[in-house]
Amino acid sequence: MQTIVILGAGKSSTYLIDFLADSCTENERNLILADLDLEAAKAKLKNRAGTQAEELDSQDVEKRKKLISRADVVISMLPAFMHPLIAMDCLELGKHFFTASYESDDLRKLKSEIESKGLLFLNECGLDPGIDHMSAMKIIQEAKEKGEEVLSFKSFAGGLLAPESEDNPWKYKFTWNPRNVVLAGQGTSRYIEKGDLKYVPYHQLFKRMETISFPGLGDFDGYPNRDSLSYRQVYGLSTIPTMLRGTLRRAGFCKAWDVFVQLGMTDDSFQMEMPENTTLRQFLNAFLPFQAELSVEEKLADVIPDMDFPTFEKIQWLGFFENRLLPKTKGSPAHLLQAILEKDWQLQPADRDMIVMQHLFEIQTENGVKKVNSSLVSFGQDSVYTAMAKTVGLPLAIAVDLFLKGKIKLTGLHVPVLPEIYEPILAELEEVGIHFEEKIQTG
Amino acid sequence: MQTIVILGAGKSSTYLIDFLADSCTENERNLILADLDLEAAKAKLKNRAGTQAEELDSQDVEKRKKLISRADVVISMLPAFMHPLIAMDCLELGKHFFTASYESDDLRKLKSEIESKGLLFLNECGLDPGIDHMSAMKIIQEAKEKGEEVLSFKSFAGGLLAPESEDNPWKYKFTWNPRNVVLAGQGTSRYIEKGDLKYVPYHQLFKRMETISFPGLGDFDGYPNRDSLSYRQVYGLSTIPTMLRGTLRRAGFCKAWDVFVQLGMTDDSFQMEMPENTTLRQFLNAFLPFQAELSVEEKLADVIPDMDFPTFEKIQWLGFFENRLLPKTKGSPAHLLQAILEKDWQLQPADRDMIVMQHLFEIQTENGVKKVNSSLVSFGQDSVYTAMAKTVGLPLAIAVDLFLKGKIKLTGLHVPVLPEIYEPILAELEEVGIHFEEKIQTG
Repeated sequence: MQTIVILGAGKSSTYLIDFLADSCTENERNLILADLDLEAAKAKLKNRAGTQAEELDSQDVEKRKKLISRADVVISMLPAFMHPLIAMDCLELGKHFFTASYESDDLRKLKSEIESKGLLFLNECGLDPGIDHMSAMKIIQEAKEKGEEVLSFKSFAGGLLAPESEDNPWKYKFTWNPRNVVLAGQGTSRYIEKGDLKYVPYHQLFKRMETISFPGLGDFDGYPNRDSLSYRQVYGLSTIPTMLRGTLRRAGFCKAWDVFVQLGMTDDSFQMEMPENTTLRQFLNAFLPFQAELSVEEKLADVIPDMDFPTFEKIQWLGFFENRLLPKTKGSPAHLLQAILEKDWQLQPADRDMIVMQHLFEIQTENGVKKVNSSLVSFGQDSVYTAMAKTVGLPLAIAVDLFLKGKIKLTGLHVPVLPEIYEPILAELEEVGIHFEEKIQTG
Repeated sequence: MQTIVILGAGKSSTYLIDFLADSCTENERNLILADLDLEAAKAKLKNRAGTQAEELDSQDVEKRKKLISRADVVISMLPAFMHPLIAMDCLELGKHFFTASYESDDLRKLKSEIESKGLLFLNECGLDPGIDHMSAMKIIQEAKEKGEEVLSFKSFAGGLLAPESEDNPWKYKFTWNPRNVVLAGQGTSRYIEKGDLKYVPYHQLFKRMETISFPGLGDFDGYPNRDSLSYRQVYGLSTIPTMLRGTLRRAGFCKAWDVFVQLGMTDDSFQMEMPENTTLRQFLNAFLPFQAELSVEEKLADVIPDMDFPTFEKIQWLGFFENRLLPKTKGSPAHLLQAILEKDWQLQPADRDMIVMQHLFEIQTENGVKKVNSSLVSFGQDSVYTAMAKTVGLPLAIAVDLFLKGKIKLTGLHVPVLPEIYEPILAELEEVGIHFEEKIQTG
């Protein structure tokens, strides 16, 4: 009997748990699902054979280690800062370790020890990072095998709403950690285009977009996402002239979000203390110049000279020109803004989310430059069975399943950029309907 | 015999050293000037009676303490991060401690111990902070004594060039730490205007200016400087509706500097590694979008839509449109930009600098609102005897002189906001030509 331990029964674990719980009977496996909320864990397991829920405060080292000692494979769905601690436990107790999170420097320090103990620590095996790596590497690897050169690789992804749930002017609701959405893009984004290194400060980021289209879905804003340069090495494309990773929002979102960025309302570096009865209008006014003779709307139009009606409408829809009270009055501007958005951008029970991902390749072939456009679109069922949970959870679940079946034999510290990892996972993802449409244009 | 120890014989110590060295004979004092560069210290002392130079690496704890143990009063002109260490030495060895730097939280922790030992630790006794506090408190105190209410207090200061040395389009050269000039304003500036709290993010700061004029000198750009709100308490004006502290640059400077800010070229948060033969044009291009068909100039005009000729000319004068090589290719964007500016904004031997400071008060009196405009203008002699060194060094020198003569009797941790400190200092500053012109308008 093999035992899988999943730490964290949160929103994004739904599909992961279902897939692995369903696999228990057929494969004679046990699954232990541990969460701070025992009842939530039980509800997700639905009494399936071989499954068991445990209450766990992940900070309780003793209990955590006791639980991990019962595992063959540990999957951490806890917040990313916990992963190094769980990884250390796994290393100490000789357990394999899987996450959908970025491989951190802390984990890289354990590399040789992981190898010498013959364990597999697989990270970045969700959606982004995860499916992005796997689907891109498949195309890159195919090109390399043919002796072709990848000249340009741009890759965009976003967690958005299915068109029928786009029922507000932003065409956006939270399907993921709201704090990460509010802080998205802070710092300096970096990429390379036709050999020119490009650096984009946060306050220019939401202006530095390109339009990305999906057949039947229309246009999206794509903006550069953090350090694209570091992926040159990960993907074995160290001399590629153009490399950019970006984030997708519905067309028009970025221009309106940039209003908050320009005004400093996404700032997380200092604490505000506004009076209890502060309105959204007053909160907005705190970031505008003082001009006694002008209204908030007029001052905003002065500070944001390219304000258009669709942008104004988005700000207005959130209640910023009304005397609606701030839901939270103490915290950083980012915290206060998040509290406002959490009310208005809440996913409703019947809402369906949507994952979009697109790779744009230019590959030098014997017959000229080939353009490859590879797109993934995945829809959620409702606010629990989301496309986000599906595309994050299933690659991870499939990876663990394949590993336990001996179909992935690798050990060491890895992200899924090797064919022996991504080929069987992509094949199984196809079977559950997660697949890329490829358009090839040779010119 | 009383002994003064000055730590640091740098650029800004010139007037301080002269004043106190000249005072030795008359007052039967000793002065010890300690610096890493013994010859520089000797040169500044000019063999005056009672003076002595010492070589000191301020990190050498043993030697430092030995030196401090010989003092009655210690003046630290070292970099600000050293002050807590020197202050601890002074506390341990029972010595009075004077600086022109901000009173830090580290120093505040020593407050009760300083008091119980009967020592005086006086900080913020230079120009800004220093003369600003003293000259403002004089006006505030006078208003309070008359039962008047201060409705508005805006205060601006800048270290600039005398008009005849304004021989570049920026009308600016470095008269102070270049790194601080490049990083000036980073973070979120805060002030209050007519009861409205205002928060200005860095990327809006150089657009959020007001014009400040000095008779005979013309117009300056004044932009909000860091946290003006905290000064409400320092100045005993906790309920004042309008309070703003600002920095002055020559009119037009801020608009051009904002180009660097908008592009991200003052960013200090990440490291660049440009090829050795990178030109200024290429460095600029790294912060512009990729558009194959446009020149650097055209792309710049796209990103900075309100670019005008005076702004363009300033960027051009620094060589950004030429194939001039970057003087430094590794470091943060701020480091690389600083290296460029250090060449072009270097103060020449015959250049004269200029200090400008202006307080703008609105005071509610029995007869309506009185406007008080109090201005200081101070010119340097040359690149050694600068107005900066004079206005930073003389208040500190005078404070120490008055203290040793028993004319300041206070002990404890202080900044010069008490009449018993600022009144005698301001009186002596008048005598050396540092004085404010006051214009009063009653309406």
